[in-house]
Amino acid sequence: MEWLNALDDDAAARHAAGLRRELRPRGAAIDLAGNDYLGLSRHPEVLAAAAGALAEFGLGATGSRLVRGTTAVHEALETGLADLLGAESALVYSSGYLANLGAVRALVRDGTLVVSDAHNHASIVDGCRLACAGRAGRAGAATVVAPHADPAAVRDILAAHPGRPAVVVTESVFSVDGDLAPLAELHAVARAHGALLLVDDAHALGVLGPRGAGGVAAAGLAGEPDVVVTATLSKSLGAAGGVVAGPRQLHRLLVDTGRTFIYDTALPPAVAAGALAALRLLAGGDALRAELHARTARAVARLRAEGLEVSAPDGGVVSVAAPSPDEAFAWAAACRERGVAVGCFRPPSTPDGRARLRLTVGVGVPAEDFDHALDIIIKERP
Amino acid sequence: MEWLNALDDDAAARHAAGLRRELRPRGAAIDLAGNDYLGLSRHPEVLAAAAGALAEFGLGATGSRLVRGTTAVHEALETGLADLLGAESALVYSSGYLANLGAVRALVRDGTLVVSDAHNHASIVDGCRLACAGRAGRAGAATVVAPHADPAAVRDILAAHPGRPAVVVTESVFSVDGDLAPLAELHAVARAHGALLLVDDAHALGVLGPRGAGGVAAAGLAGEPDVVVTATLSKSLGAAGGVVAGPRQLHRLLVDTGRTFIYDTALPPAVAAGALAALRLLAGGDALRAELHARTARAVARLRAEGLEVSAPDGGVVSVAAPSPDEAFAWAAACRERGVAVGCFRPPSTPDGRARLRLTVGVGVPAEDFDHALDIIIKERP
Ligand SMILES: Cc1ncc(COP(=O)(O)O)c(C=O)c1O
Ligand SMILES: Cc1ncc(COP(=O)(O)O)c(C=O)c1O
Repeated sequence: MEWLNALDDDAAARHAAGLRRELRPRGAAIDLAGNDYLGLSRHPEVLAAAAGALAEFGLGATGSRLVRGTTAVHEALETGLADLLGAESALVYSSGYLANLGAVRALVRDGTLVVSDAHNHASIVDGCRLACAGRAGRAGAATVVAPHADPAAVRDILAAHPGRPAVVVTESVFSVDGDLAPLAELHAVARAHGALLLVDDAHALGVLGPRGAGGVAAAGLAGEPDVVVTATLSKSLGAAGGVVAGPRQLHRLLVDTGRTFIYDTALPPAVAAGALAALRLLAGGDALRAELHARTARAVARLRAEGLEVSAPDGGVVSVAAPSPDEAFAWAAACRERGVAVGCFRPPSTPDGRARLRLTVGVGVPAEDFDHALDIIIKERP
Repeated sequence: MEWLNALDDDAAARHAAGLRRELRPRGAAIDLAGNDYLGLSRHPEVLAAAAGALAEFGLGATGSRLVRGTTAVHEALETGLADLLGAESALVYSSGYLANLGAVRALVRDGTLVVSDAHNHASIVDGCRLACAGRAGRAGAATVVAPHADPAAVRDILAAHPGRPAVVVTESVFSVDGDLAPLAELHAVARAHGALLLVDDAHALGVLGPRGAGGVAAAGLAGEPDVVVTATLSKSLGAAGGVVAGPRQLHRLLVDTGRTFIYDTALPPAVAAGALAALRLLAGGDALRAELHARTARAVARLRAEGLEVSAPDGGVVSVAAPSPDEAFAWAAACRERGVAVGCFRPPSTPDGRARLRLTVGVGVPAEDFDHALDIIIKERP
């Protein structure tokens, strides 16, 4: 068929350009690729809670919570998340991706200007597209991409649109480079314009802030009425799912009109129960967080001492520059050969066109394994 | 804050218009609301498989499969799904919603005309929006909504755009009314134009076709090179997740470029393992399917004998017309009071502006409970 030939041609072109992605088995590699920052995905209490709910509720949620009914587990998880995040309310989604689609859409009305950081995650970008695009989105809503982590630039963009409703959207700890957005400054700029601030706290929840409450809480912005927080339950909580937290009026809007909540099967009760157990561990996890930050600092120091160019991480994501996309790929492959799994980010999926290894610091990895992994990464450098 | 006052006003307006949605506990109600058609969400083999994988892998997948590595469970699930659906390949997503977003986007290129059935699910509609909308979508791509289940209308739309690449998108068993799309006719029309056919088999997988292979297989279209199938693992499989199945070239495209696959945490291994166990049970589930169809037929006959207006269901979804949105709401509430959970669909979330109860036939519900539930539904009719 013609379309299959066209797909073959496209694939050959991607291949030639080094844009092929491969699904490879995990194997027994030391994990510096996943986002299980506190090791909670394997914590016995998390597993016990999930197993208990599996036996009680069965596997799937069998429908949306609006049609099928909600469970005590989902409610407790939402109460716990709202409490931790210092928000009036929280609504759980089946993924962080769908939570972001829902959150952006809910904050955009006719004519809204969305100011989105250049490094924002694909799910935020798709959220902006869905909320603003054409006939399907809000009339006159539009997205402007702001330079990365640049409150002055955001201020200028907002100032160019006086009186227009606006939303500033950013991650807290950015997923690719691990740097922390200037949240307090962004909030000040947003508030001066009467704009809302939407923060994706995916990589900071559990890692930063009091009780691991995240980047928004660390910046002193928890509970501000013009701040909305999203997060995924799939990183430091070691589970799956997503959340939107904010004023109770937002919760009502999402329940009444949010397509990715209403028309999606709820998070499996067993996964919600595991996330809830993780949430409780996370709040008491100061020692784990201290270990994470100490380990991150040691890793950065060691890699820099070898002359490598390393990001300044605020959470558990360490980005190491590679000379070229091909060398990044070969570097990651060599590490994998030697039993170390690292992320490899190459253009076009890097926001700045630069290739790097992405290392995550998870305290579930034994310290000696972690140090050994660094040895290998250094040894295999291009 | 001003935006919160505006949200309060909006909520009051929705409330006055009867558009408020409530999250209510499941309780112990007889379930004619969920989509667990074969009762597999509680099958001991499904629970055992999920529990085993939970112990082996931990709870969350801790990353996308591209970054974190794939598991034997995910691979076996994909092999099993491709085999059942008669497709060359299958790719698993964390939800059916994200699978649909990914599938529509992958089939749209510059200038593509998407012909989407008027009753299609929100996730397909959002997929069309993301794929076509503005700058973010493909240049010149556009969606035309076709009248429901009307191959002649689809033919006319395609004929009005000779030579233009096109995709016809439909559900098989529609989620709201339970009717089956005229798949063979739609495929003939699509093929005559050189268009692709994308079918969301969410409510037919496990319910229709040989071995429960779904509506596409039942229509004799399995493995056709111009047919792509999506489905969710959250209905007859009793789990969670989604799948896109089709030619291997499509699989490659999705792995290389599909945003909702690449930038989303993988389905938890335990959920994948449960879905895989369900898949095996489903293929051998002819007796369950026979019971489902017999029960559905009995329910329709009984409701019609009472003078109720009932859809002609092909799977396990039975739609019963209500005189008005308010009466539909009160009817569903009265059933719930008496221990029977049913779906209640009212405009604007019904595609045709009509209100109805939506009953699902799940053979996991004991037969006498099911009959008792019908008694109550009839007794409480408006
Ligand atoms: C910053 C950020 N936001 C959102 C998501 C999406 O969350 P999920 O994987 O739960 O869909 C991710 C990663 O997957 C992420 O890194
Ligand atoms: C027809 C149809 N497609 C897709 C979906 C989305 O699947 P999921 O709930 O797994 O996101 C649903 C229901 O939820 C559906 O009814």
